[in-house]
Amino acid sequence: VDRERTVVIAGVGLIGGSIGLAVRARRPGMRVIGLGRDRARLEQAVRLGAIDRATTDAAEAYAGADVAVVCTPVTRVARDAREAARLAPPHVLVTDAGSTKAAIVAEIEADVDPSSRRAFVGAHPIAGSEKKGAAHARDDLFEGRACVLTPTPFTDPDRLDRARAFWSSLGCVLTEMAPAEHDRALALTSHLPHAVAAALAATVPADLLPLAAGAYRDGTRVAGSDAELWAGIFLANRSHVLDALTAFDLSLNRFRDALRDDDPAALALWWEEARSRRARFQPDDPATAHAP
Amino acid sequence: VDRERTVVIAGVGLIGGSIGLAVRARRPGMRVIGLGRDRARLEQAVRLGAIDRATTDAAEAYAGADVAVVCTPVTRVARDAREAARLAPPHVLVTDAGSTKAAIVAEIEADVDPSSRRAFVGAHPIAGSEKKGAAHARDDLFEGRACVLTPTPFTDPDRLDRARAFWSSLGCVLTEMAPAEHDRALALTSHLPHAVAAALAATVPADLLPLAAGAYRDGTRVAGSDAELWAGIFLANRSHVLDALTAFDLSLNRFRDALRDDDPAALALWWEEARSRRARFQPDDPATAHAP
Repeated sequence: VDRERTVVIAGVGLIGGSIGLAVRARRPGMRVIGLGRDRARLEQAVRLGAIDRATTDAAEAYAGADVAVVCTPVTRVARDAREAARLAPPHVLVTDAGSTKAAIVAEIEADVDPSSRRAFVGAHPIAGSEKKGAAHARDDLFEGRACVLTPTPFTDPDRLDRARAFWSSLGCVLTEMAPAEHDRALALTSHLPHAVAAALAATVPADLLPLAAGAYRDGTRVAGSDAELWAGIFLANRSHVLDALTAFDLSLNRFRDALRDDDPAALALWWEEARSRRARFQPDDPATAHAP
Repeated sequence: VDRERTVVIAGVGLIGGSIGLAVRARRPGMRVIGLGRDRARLEQAVRLGAIDRATTDAAEAYAGADVAVVCTPVTRVARDAREAARLAPPHVLVTDAGSTKAAIVAEIEADVDPSSRRAFVGAHPIAGSEKKGAAHARDDLFEGRACVLTPTPFTDPDRLDRARAFWSSLGCVLTEMAPAEHDRALALTSHLPHAVAAALAATVPADLLPLAAGAYRDGTRVAGSDAELWAGIFLANRSHVLDALTAFDLSLNRFRDALRDDDPAALALWWEEARSRRARFQPDDPATAHAP
């Protein structure tokens, strides 16, 4: 870890930019290179101080990389991680920030070139925002936030230690679980809430919005997120998200039945169960202070 | 309006307490009397400056009332409004802050004693919080917020003018519509978001909460609201809430179908429609700065 000098961040948006800001704030000796496809966005990230240097040339970016962090949309993470492992020096640690893990890890471990699975440790720092781009990046986005690492039997123990050290150095609180276990959990804690927020936003007619207030505002906030990004996340975690929807329907149908039956006791009981579950969440905990 | 000197607030919780604070801050000549059943809560409201004087005796409270504002749960509003009309001087304006209107207005207008329907103007200031009690009251809770008045052909024009003046004096932006129209709108803008928040809160297992973040936090916030209060609101607006649930299901089923069909374009289109609808809401507008 002490010999790590150069981090390459592939994809310098909200997450990649925040990682850059956090590395530069917390690890002054490190050099941060941003790799992307859009020159204007890369230059903005340099101006914002999220990265030291920018390039659109992957070979140039990875030439001296000790750590590569892939922060592209989940549909591109596996491909970009394999590229990093192929182009970087053999000792490179490749990690990512994707919101789903099983499909990404499986694709990387299936690579005929064994350097990918040797270099890679899947990660998901659970932080974000409905806002896009490095302009919304923050150096404390990961402070006290959970980061899930998803090692497998193929994971190199040395890389796992380096991944732990890297994500901890950004302020994350680490958890480790299998990729599929991560995806099942996040389907409920993040993907379902996003789908529900969008369905709610789509249901309230525009002409009634002047009569909407806090419940609508908070319940639909994350529907402001990027469509392509979320289509990719939902599809990458399709079966778990479908299961989460079924569980959600069961709960909403209990409400509907109690309402149809005109049953105040059943309604109050259903509500009270939800209320007491919600009370176990610690929204003022630094670990849950930001989105999503 | 200028001759109004005494306001009685029946039910000094978050809403009643905020009305008291706002009246005292904005109309220094007025005396605010709090009427309630729980002496400790009434005394707290006096200490917090939400009311000048407290009583548990309705006849005593209403003896000199120029305005009565009923801020009790929707299941009790009609009864309490009729009591106010019966006990107060004949010129009294009776108004309320109930989250539903049709059942309340119908019950008051059906009163054999015509003083109720002559005195009453239904109102719903669209502001609140998942928190309970005068301790969470704020004098700016209604500042710039929509308040719906629901006059009917029975409404006395003079009382309607006085109700407009009263709610405007608290900082509300007035809208007027029929009681049923209000209930249909609020089923979508407020009651549905509350039901969805509770269903979401009930769906995420407690052991996964450390992996929940902003989407869960905001999407379930209002599930922290009071169970009895919300059971009453849902039942008082039963058919419109059931209709709103059906509309929500249609949207969520479009998502489910696109996901089952593995169709990224359909998912992105569905999301984009939700995102653009949400973008028309102005969350930073003072009119929408607070809950619910």
